[in-house]
Amino acid sequence: MRHILILGAGLSSSYLIKYLLEHASHHNWTLTVADSNISLAQEKTNTHQSASAIALDVNDSYELAQHISEHDLVISLLPPSMHIQVAKTCIQYKKHLITASYVSEDMRHLHTDAIKAGIVLLNEIGLDPGIDHMSAMEIIHQIQESGGNIVSFKSYTGGLIAPEYDDNPWHYKFTWNPRNVVLAGQATASYIENNELKFIPTSRIFKQTEKITVDGHTYEGYANRDSLEYIKPYGLTAAKTVLRGTLRVNGFCESWNHLILLGLTDNSFAIKDSDSLTYRSWLSAFTPGTDIRQLEKRVCDFLKISIESEAFQKLKWLGLFENVSINMREGTPAQILQMLLQQKWKLQKGELDMIVMQHQFVYELNGKMATMESSLVVKGEDEKLTAMSKTVGLPMAIATKLLLTGKINTRGVQIPTTAEFYQPILKELKDYGILFH
Amino acid sequence: MRHILILGAGLSSSYLIKYLLEHASHHNWTLTVADSNISLAQEKTNTHQSASAIALDVNDSYELAQHISEHDLVISLLPPSMHIQVAKTCIQYKKHLITASYVSEDMRHLHTDAIKAGIVLLNEIGLDPGIDHMSAMEIIHQIQESGGNIVSFKSYTGGLIAPEYDDNPWHYKFTWNPRNVVLAGQATASYIENNELKFIPTSRIFKQTEKITVDGHTYEGYANRDSLEYIKPYGLTAAKTVLRGTLRVNGFCESWNHLILLGLTDNSFAIKDSDSLTYRSWLSAFTPGTDIRQLEKRVCDFLKISIESEAFQKLKWLGLFENVSINMREGTPAQILQMLLQQKWKLQKGELDMIVMQHQFVYELNGKMATMESSLVVKGEDEKLTAMSKTVGLPMAIATKLLLTGKINTRGVQIPTTAEFYQPILKELKDYGILFH
Repeated sequence: MRHILILGAGLSSSYLIKYLLEHASHHNWTLTVADSNISLAQEKTNTHQSASAIALDVNDSYELAQHISEHDLVISLLPPSMHIQVAKTCIQYKKHLITASYVSEDMRHLHTDAIKAGIVLLNEIGLDPGIDHMSAMEIIHQIQESGGNIVSFKSYTGGLIAPEYDDNPWHYKFTWNPRNVVLAGQATASYIENNELKFIPTSRIFKQTEKITVDGHTYEGYANRDSLEYIKPYGLTAAKTVLRGTLRVNGFCESWNHLILLGLTDNSFAIKDSDSLTYRSWLSAFTPGTDIRQLEKRVCDFLKISIESEAFQKLKWLGLFENVSINMREGTPAQILQMLLQQKWKLQKGELDMIVMQHQFVYELNGKMATMESSLVVKGEDEKLTAMSKTVGLPMAIATKLLLTGKINTRGVQIPTTAEFYQPILKELKDYGILFH
Repeated sequence: MRHILILGAGLSSSYLIKYLLEHASHHNWTLTVADSNISLAQEKTNTHQSASAIALDVNDSYELAQHISEHDLVISLLPPSMHIQVAKTCIQYKKHLITASYVSEDMRHLHTDAIKAGIVLLNEIGLDPGIDHMSAMEIIHQIQESGGNIVSFKSYTGGLIAPEYDDNPWHYKFTWNPRNVVLAGQATASYIENNELKFIPTSRIFKQTEKITVDGHTYEGYANRDSLEYIKPYGLTAAKTVLRGTLRVNGFCESWNHLILLGLTDNSFAIKDSDSLTYRSWLSAFTPGTDIRQLEKRVCDFLKISIESEAFQKLKWLGLFENVSINMREGTPAQILQMLLQQKWKLQKGELDMIVMQHQFVYELNGKMATMESSLVVKGEDEKLTAMSKTVGLPMAIATKLLLTGKINTRGVQIPTTAEFYQPILKELKDYGILFH
C-alpha cells in the first residue's frame, strides 16, 4: 500500500486525480486530496474508496508535516511560493515531491539535501514547463545521436479556446490561473538569437511577436521568461538561437499590449477607494487628458488606433468604457482588470479548451542544413477535464506511478530533460492522445 | 549638555554637520557622526572639539541601541529601508528622530507608540520632501486665511547642475544619490487634474511632461510619485488639481525615456556574466534586431529618432555604443547604467549644483480667479557644500535646534506641514539665502 498526498484541488487537479484514482486499486494506492476549501477536495475525490478529502491550511507547518509524514509521495499544486516549505518538509521525512512549477533559486539550493534524503524533488513536469521539455529533448537527443548539430531551437506553447467555442473578439478564455495570465510578461524576457543575447522589457514583450503556423492555423508567439537557463540543460550550448515562447490567437498580443501601455496590468500599487470608481472613470484615469466625455477619442489617440479598428472593439467589448461600478476596494489595476476579465473570458459549461505546442529545429547534418517542426494539438474533454488539466496533470500522474514503482532512480532537484523521464512518460501520453506530429 | 547622533556621513550630511558644529558651543551640544565607513565620518567631524566620529554597523541592533540610548536626538541619513529599525529603537529609549525621507506605511504605524513615548518621529524635512511642504503650506495658509479657495496646486523641484558648469549634452550631473536618480519614475505616478484622478505608468512618466519657466529659464516637469496622499495634509480637499513633480532641463526627459524604452533602467533581474559584455553588446541585447554592426541604425529605428538628432548624440555621449567591457558581474541593467552614468555625470571639483523649485497656485478670492507663483533658486557653495546638501541638511539642522530648545511640542509621526514647523524654519532658511520669490 502506497500513500499519495495531493496539495491543492483547484482546476488543474481534475485529470491528475482522475488518472491516479483509475490506477489506485491496481497499484494498491491511497490518495489524500488536501485543500483549504474541503468541498473542492471532496468534489474531486467523490465517493471513491481509495480516496479521502481533507481540509488543510498549508501555513500550519505542524499539520503539514503530520500529513506529509504519513504519505509516500507528495504532489503540490499550490502556488509556487509555497513549494519551498513543502519541499523542506519532504526532505525531512524523506518523501518524493512532484510539482509543475518552475524551479526557483530556493528550490535549486535544496538539491544536495534532497540527494542526502534519497528523494527526488521533481519540478516542471506539467505542460509548459513539462511536456515541452520532454518532447523537445526526445528530438534533440535523436538529432544529436544521428550526428546532427542543432543551430536553432524555438518552442511555443499556448493554452487557448477550441476554435468552435471561440466566440469573443479576443479569441481567448481563461483555461488556467487568471492571475498568471494577467501578470504574464511582467518580467524581462531573455533568449539568444543568431548568437546574440536578447532582452525584451515588459513594455514590448507583446509587441515583438512572431507568426507561428500550426495545422494550417496562424498564431502569434511572444518570448516567455528566461530561455537562457535552458541552454545548458537542453545541451544546446552550440546553438545560435534558443527561444521559448507563448502562443496566442492573432491580434491578442497587440490588444494586450494596449492594456499594458494604458497601465491596467500594473500590480505594484493599490488604488485607494477603487470601489468609488466605474470602469469608465478608471480607464479615464490611465488615459492622457481629462475630459471623460471624450474618453473613446482619447484612448484611440493615445494608442494610435481608429475607433473602427478591431483593437478598439476589443477594449469596448471588455466593458472598459461602461459606467459600471468597480466592485473591489483598494484593488491594484491588475486585480481590477482580472476581476473584469474573469466575467468576460469564462469557459462556459460544455465549452472545450485547446493546447497548441510547436517546436522548431534548424540543424546541420552531414554538411547540410535541415529543419524540423514538431507540433501538438490537444482539445479538452469537457469544461472540467480541460486540455490544460489533462496536459498539466497527466505527466505528473505518470511520474507519480514511475516513482512509486521504482522506475526512476535519479534523486535531487530535477526537471524532466533526460530519457529516464521522457521515454516512459511520452510513451504513455500517446495512449491519451497527447501525440506530436 | 545635549547629545546629537547622526547616522550616515554621505554627501548630503555636509551642510547639516556644518550647521550643527557652528551652533554646538552656543547650545552646549555634542555631535556623534556614525558611518560604516569611519573615514567618511572623520572627514566631516574633522578635529572639532564638540564632535566625534564612530564606526557603526546599523545592522548590529545591540550596538545601534547602545548609541541611541546615549544621545538625546537622532538624525538618520540612512537608506529609507533602515529607518524603521532606528525609529523603533528611538521609541524604546524615548529619543526624537529626524529624517528627510518619505513616511513609509511602517513608519506611519508607529504614530501612537511615538506619542506614548513622548517623542517626535519627524520625516520629510529635507528639500523635496521638506522645503516644498513648508513653503507651499505657508502660502496655502495665507490664501485660505484671506478667504481664498485654492483650485489648483502644482509644485516642481529639481536638483540640477548650475548653468555655468553645464557642459554635457544631458545638462545633468549627479548631486544626490545616483541610485535614486536611475530608479526614479519606476512606480506609477498619481495625482488629480480638473477633478479627475490621473495615473501615469512608468512607461510614460517621462513622456507626459509640462513646460515650467523659472527665472526666465524653461524646464520640463514630470509627475513624481503619489501626489494624492498630500491632498488631505495640505488641506486641499476642495482643489481640482494637485500635482507634485520633478524638474529637469529640456530634453532630459525624452532621452531618459529612451533608456527606459530600451530596458536599461530595469532593476528586476541580474544579467549573468555581465562582465563578459561590452556596453555595445549590452545595448544591442536590448535593441530589436541582431546585427551589431548596424546597432546605431537599429537604435534610431526603434526609438524613431535620426542619427543627427540631439537625442541620439546623448546616447552616444554616454558611451553606450563603445566596445568597452562592463566591469560588473551579475549586474542588473539599472546597476550597469548607474555605473556608467557615475563616470559621465560626476560633479567635478569646483563645480556648483543648483536647486530649482516652483509652486503654482490658482485660487478664487472674492469671486475672482487669481494665480500665484513662488520660486526658489539656490546654488551650491562648492562641490561638497552643494545646494542639495544645503537644502536637505539645513531644515533638518534647524528642526534639531528647535526640538532640543523645546520649541516643537507636537509628538508622533510628523511631516512639517504646520506653522509650528514652517514658520521658524523658513525664517531661518532666509538667513542662508534660501528664499522664495
